[in-house]
Amino acid sequence: MIIPVVYDSKSRQKILDRSGVDGSSVEQSVRQIISEVRARGDAALYDYTERFDGAKLDALAVSDGEFERAEKMVGDEYKAMLRRSAENISAFHRAQLNNGFEIRTEGCVMGQKFSPVGSAGLYVPGGKAAYPSTVLMNALPAKIAGVARVVMVTPPLADGSVRAEVLVAARIAGVSEVYKVGGAQAIAALAYGTESIAGVDVITGPGNIFVATAKKLVYGVCGIDMIAGPSEILIIADDGADADCVAADLLSQAEHDELATAVLVTDSARLANAVPAALECRLNALARRDIARVSIENNCKIIIAKDLREAAKISDELAPEHLELAVKQPFDLLKMVNNAGSVFLGYSTPEPVGDYYAGTNHTLPTGGTAKFSSPLGVQNFMKATQYVYYSDNKLAASADDIVMFARSEGLTAHAESVLARTKK
Amino acid sequence: MIIPVVYDSKSRQKILDRSGVDGSSVEQSVRQIISEVRARGDAALYDYTERFDGAKLDALAVSDGEFERAEKMVGDEYKAMLRRSAENISAFHRAQLNNGFEIRTEGCVMGQKFSPVGSAGLYVPGGKAAYPSTVLMNALPAKIAGVARVVMVTPPLADGSVRAEVLVAARIAGVSEVYKVGGAQAIAALAYGTESIAGVDVITGPGNIFVATAKKLVYGVCGIDMIAGPSEILIIADDGADADCVAADLLSQAEHDELATAVLVTDSARLANAVPAALECRLNALARRDIARVSIENNCKIIIAKDLREAAKISDELAPEHLELAVKQPFDLLKMVNNAGSVFLGYSTPEPVGDYYAGTNHTLPTGGTAKFSSPLGVQNFMKATQYVYYSDNKLAASADDIVMFARSEGLTAHAESVLARTKK
Repeated sequence: MIIPVVYDSKSRQKILDRSGVDGSSVEQSVRQIISEVRARGDAALYDYTERFDGAKLDALAVSDGEFERAEKMVGDEYKAMLRRSAENISAFHRAQLNNGFEIRTEGCVMGQKFSPVGSAGLYVPGGKAAYPSTVLMNALPAKIAGVARVVMVTPPLADGSVRAEVLVAARIAGVSEVYKVGGAQAIAALAYGTESIAGVDVITGPGNIFVATAKKLVYGVCGIDMIAGPSEILIIADDGADADCVAADLLSQAEHDELATAVLVTDSARLANAVPAALECRLNALARRDIARVSIENNCKIIIAKDLREAAKISDELAPEHLELAVKQPFDLLKMVNNAGSVFLGYSTPEPVGDYYAGTNHTLPTGGTAKFSSPLGVQNFMKATQYVYYSDNKLAASADDIVMFARSEGLTAHAESVLARTKK
Repeated sequence: MIIPVVYDSKSRQKILDRSGVDGSSVEQSVRQIISEVRARGDAALYDYTERFDGAKLDALAVSDGEFERAEKMVGDEYKAMLRRSAENISAFHRAQLNNGFEIRTEGCVMGQKFSPVGSAGLYVPGGKAAYPSTVLMNALPAKIAGVARVVMVTPPLADGSVRAEVLVAARIAGVSEVYKVGGAQAIAALAYGTESIAGVDVITGPGNIFVATAKKLVYGVCGIDMIAGPSEILIIADDGADADCVAADLLSQAEHDELATAVLVTDSARLANAVPAALECRLNALARRDIARVSIENNCKIIIAKDLREAAKISDELAPEHLELAVKQPFDLLKMVNNAGSVFLGYSTPEPVGDYYAGTNHTLPTGGTAKFSSPLGVQNFMKATQYVYYSDNKLAASADDIVMFARSEGLTAHAESVLARTKK
């Protein structure tokens, strides 16, 4: 059973401690995989897919026939649900579009315009489970940004197939270019291109430590969204929160991964003391109880704060990926929150509302990176271009300043490019 | 003398070839420096500063006395010029501020809010030249974003001082925390913190290959703006452009660095043939002629395109850091440009207008990364937080969809966190 801890100067360091996953142990293998893919292209992809996924493939690309079979396998009800979710996600992400700006003053026009990247590659994890939600959460922002070519990669099952739910979600999101390849080899293919898979400008999507390490290594060759670590939730709850609901929400995080973290911060001693039993009660009934138990035992903390303001401060220090505000006045508390990927407000908004449905993105900064990173959004698939226009007169009026500035940096050719015009 | 090349399928690959700088040769040394700084803190910073900059320091921080002496050393005219530049930069970057959005529908509130990072560290290169423009271009966006703590690091001269122009620019930009440390050791200190220098959330600013490699290695521990390579310009010019002005602009890039790249793309054979002589004519008069000559001889290309549309296509393939449109109708041509950091429009807007003065940022994506990255701006110093609120009724109405979606991914605890509420 978890023992609640009172937040104070002594417990603070322990509470803030994150036993991060160290990527360096896999870095050498990942480097090797990347260089094999660069050297051998498709042949390396086939080999690695056989070795890591146990699948002997005839072709990397998912065929039209496979898409059609997937459509038939998945029920209409399921498809309608995916479409409703896709609509909500689209509405949220359309609101992110930024038209840039233009400033006009005498003799000067300056501005910034946004344009989509040419191509984007989405990583969708495979393995035992299917993740159609990841497809929607990555592909829809890319499509809304206006990306012309959106590609998906995902590791196949041992029989060489891709889960029907994933293919149907790809179709709904408008993605028709899907390749059966996963792991670091998929990231290498997206970054550098092979005979079958043309390289992309931006790679997004979650993955295991091999995928995350590969993304870090190819960053610069192409853009990446972020380097994702294990998933996390922090719940700030007041005395009005239901212990059973709080326990259910902590477990919804814990079932992801043995490294997942679930933290409750509350100003209610009653709640703090009721949650451990509620967790126990729910744990055994879970399908993924083995994973959830390890995660809860290793990485679940219950912290007693003196008030909600202190709770918000603790949350900002941890900068959680997911933050639930299970309190009576969640919008007031939201104003005190600075560092969090996605915030779930009130007693009736558990995290799965955002994981699957409401429209906010579920690809979020982990491991405290919410201090400086943003959720995945259309901005990951766009880039800004600045522009400036000076008239003859404006250049003449500014020439002395520019020349003085350039010369003070020792860059006289910079000064000359202005003088070449104004001296004439 | 440079021989103009006609753009066609045969010349295309050669034109697009970028002989990039390979960072791997310095990576081991940089790793070593980072781990020394993590292990030994300030002591390592003092040692490296003595070894690499030849300066034996008593303190890392620039003192108030040093700031005051710098103020006295720099003339009033110069300060007034810096202030005018700072005002222009501030006007442009204020326009970048994004207030986020909120969407309200029946039983649902969703939105995205932006908040500044807690702290930012700016790298300002030192060495032979002073770069006060880098100070303004990095510090002002951070300040406008609302960052509470803005820190600057810059390598000292051998006598332990920092250039007066740099300190005055820091003061004008509102930065009072400046440390005398450069190279990979400065990046390590900003990322991990030492006794004297508290770690920061985001590191920005240009630097040599050691700085760039260190930034790549600490990415994830904190945010970084981008990994900068050698500077580049591409000029699209029509027959109305002046060969001497074009030559001056190519040289303003070439003087930066022997690896700097300067490319002219024109639909005018007359101009293409006139520019090489104009370059020769100007080269010998330059203070930095030795650097500029190497850069021009190795990395300058003159390309003849069949029309301006093709020129824009070539530019998009190269995705240059700086793009000049020295043409009669630059705003029309701008519409065809997708991949460029900063664009300079018309015959009277040479690149130094943006390097120093107009207000657009001069920290820009290099090496073709403009295909997926943006200029430095306030967004580098802010992050988004999403939020969503569902009412009881909205959750009840959505529960079936969310539960179906969660179960299809095998995440039954996700489903339970919804059912814990709606079943009651």
